[in-house]
Amino acid sequence: MTNPLAVTMGEPAGIGGEITLKTWLARSDDIPPFYVIDDPDRLASLARRLDWPAVVRAIDAPDQAVDVFVEALPVMPIGCAIRAQPGRPDPADVPAILSAIETAVRDVRGGRAAAVVTNPIHKNSLYCAGFRHAGHTEYLAELAGTSQLPVMMLVCPALRVVPVTIHQALREAIESLSSADIVHAGRVTGAALRQDFGIPTPVLAVAGLNPHAGEAGALGREEIDIIEPALAELRAAGIDARGPLPPDTMFNAEARGSYDAALCMYHDQALIPLKTIDFYGGVNVTLGLPFVRTSPDHGTAFAIAGRGAARPDSLIAALRLAARMAAGRQAAG
Amino acid sequence: MTNPLAVTMGEPAGIGGEITLKTWLARSDDIPPFYVIDDPDRLASLARRLDWPAVVRAIDAPDQAVDVFVEALPVMPIGCAIRAQPGRPDPADVPAILSAIETAVRDVRGGRAAAVVTNPIHKNSLYCAGFRHAGHTEYLAELAGTSQLPVMMLVCPALRVVPVTIHQALREAIESLSSADIVHAGRVTGAALRQDFGIPTPVLAVAGLNPHAGEAGALGREEIDIIEPALAELRAAGIDARGPLPPDTMFNAEARGSYDAALCMYHDQALIPLKTIDFYGGVNVTLGLPFVRTSPDHGTAFAIAGRGAARPDSLIAALRLAARMAAGRQAAG
Repeated sequence: MTNPLAVTMGEPAGIGGEITLKTWLARSDDIPPFYVIDDPDRLASLARRLDWPAVVRAIDAPDQAVDVFVEALPVMPIGCAIRAQPGRPDPADVPAILSAIETAVRDVRGGRAAAVVTNPIHKNSLYCAGFRHAGHTEYLAELAGTSQLPVMMLVCPALRVVPVTIHQALREAIESLSSADIVHAGRVTGAALRQDFGIPTPVLAVAGLNPHAGEAGALGREEIDIIEPALAELRAAGIDARGPLPPDTMFNAEARGSYDAALCMYHDQALIPLKTIDFYGGVNVTLGLPFVRTSPDHGTAFAIAGRGAARPDSLIAALRLAARMAAGRQAAG
Repeated sequence: MTNPLAVTMGEPAGIGGEITLKTWLARSDDIPPFYVIDDPDRLASLARRLDWPAVVRAIDAPDQAVDVFVEALPVMPIGCAIRAQPGRPDPADVPAILSAIETAVRDVRGGRAAAVVTNPIHKNSLYCAGFRHAGHTEYLAELAGTSQLPVMMLVCPALRVVPVTIHQALREAIESLSSADIVHAGRVTGAALRQDFGIPTPVLAVAGLNPHAGEAGALGREEIDIIEPALAELRAAGIDARGPLPPDTMFNAEARGSYDAALCMYHDQALIPLKTIDFYGGVNVTLGLPFVRTSPDHGTAFAIAGRGAARPDSLIAALRLAARMAAGRQAAG
């Protein structure tokens, strides 16, 4: 029998609980079985308040999840009551938020869960309570005991993008762009496309940084000084990396058909095309961990939390992709 | 009777001739009548070589174009033979290229043409022959005798974008971004949406520069220091300008429905969403001239010139938009 997916609570003041309930309610729509590490009472009362016909059932071990899933949302109890209210995070919840992540990692590393799917957290709330990691992904990498820096990929059915620089001011992203980071992202992406996505000889499209990819230096030198050397190194490592490509002409439907993932030089170069094409269904995937981890590509959405209005599309897409990737990795052996 | 549109030859080594012929061949498909300022012999021999059933007829004055258009492509002769071959520009053609632009401007300013639609030129070829203007648009502005800097807008049926900085290295675009340029672009865009697009109270969506629009300064200060003051000035001038908006979430179909044009801070922030949504049908519009001017949003495409393979979609869209804008401006008085 296939292992269930382990879903974390995320920030309980956000929309995690309601999108998890909505996803379970849509279970007949080919949702892979999962359990959520959370407070069962909180979820049950949330369902009652929203007048949703969701049944919540506490489980003792992941191996009960697949059977329970048919009749109830399986919840691995987090062991303490949650104090946050929708839109209002509470520092007292931070240990529970982190413990949900730790439990999920322990389950997947122990062979009891197929993959980890994380609900959104709110970094600032965690920092106020003493959290000392750069983010969700860095925390997972530490729990996983990996030495290599994980790589973020965003996925929708029509496009896979990997931003080489991420949460930095655009000016700083340009300053910090390095051949080494492009090569690292390209290597990890190439390996993941083979191992998890079942693509034997992946093609990477590497974007330029500047308009028209710099026009041979007339519109900027980063292509010549930073990106082309990285491309040479990737090709020398046997990776089919093409570019630097003019960023504006590489994301239309015809161009997308020519590659398996796009390496982008900054956050919005990756996120603008992805969210323009598929606003609700994007999935955030962490490559380079010893297990599969996906998450919805939205945040905690405090502004609408607790109303039942949040759409579960991205969490559902994250679950489906995690299940496919875990199966792919297992098949790749 | 409505005036015809004046189309320029553009760089004769590029695809201008063949997309103009293709557009005339598609005339039954609701193409507004136009004439092209070009060498009739060159166009006739191009049609013969490509084995296209296009008829070319020289005209003496724009007022003959509408009647001729039904039976033949009306060509206002440029007065000299063209020497360029497909893909190989010839410096001897530069005076003819410029004269076609001058004639079009003279015709539209003299009330004989409804608008100017320009085929692509190749700046480097012009520079080698002594052309001293920053580009096509700047040359048109000089011919038009306008003191205000024109503003570039890119248009497809689903989106209008105005890049505030354009052909600069990304690093330089950030350095040069100024509140004054944003305000200028916003004022000219607002006026054009009212005058040419028939939108009485246009809404402008103003993008941030940084990821998540800077997250209140945590990811860059340009939103606070440059963009917000520009927004305040635009609003004080009675323009409904909203932002700074997170760049990645403002171009999906739902978001696009909430504004009439997006003001973008750099080339690819505008061009990535536009070309991702509509790769072939984008139109380049010059706002702030005393006449309507549009052009296809592609270049001379030397690599495929002369083969008949180039798609006329963008020229056709440029003609249709020019006709609609000219009618709008006339109606606005």
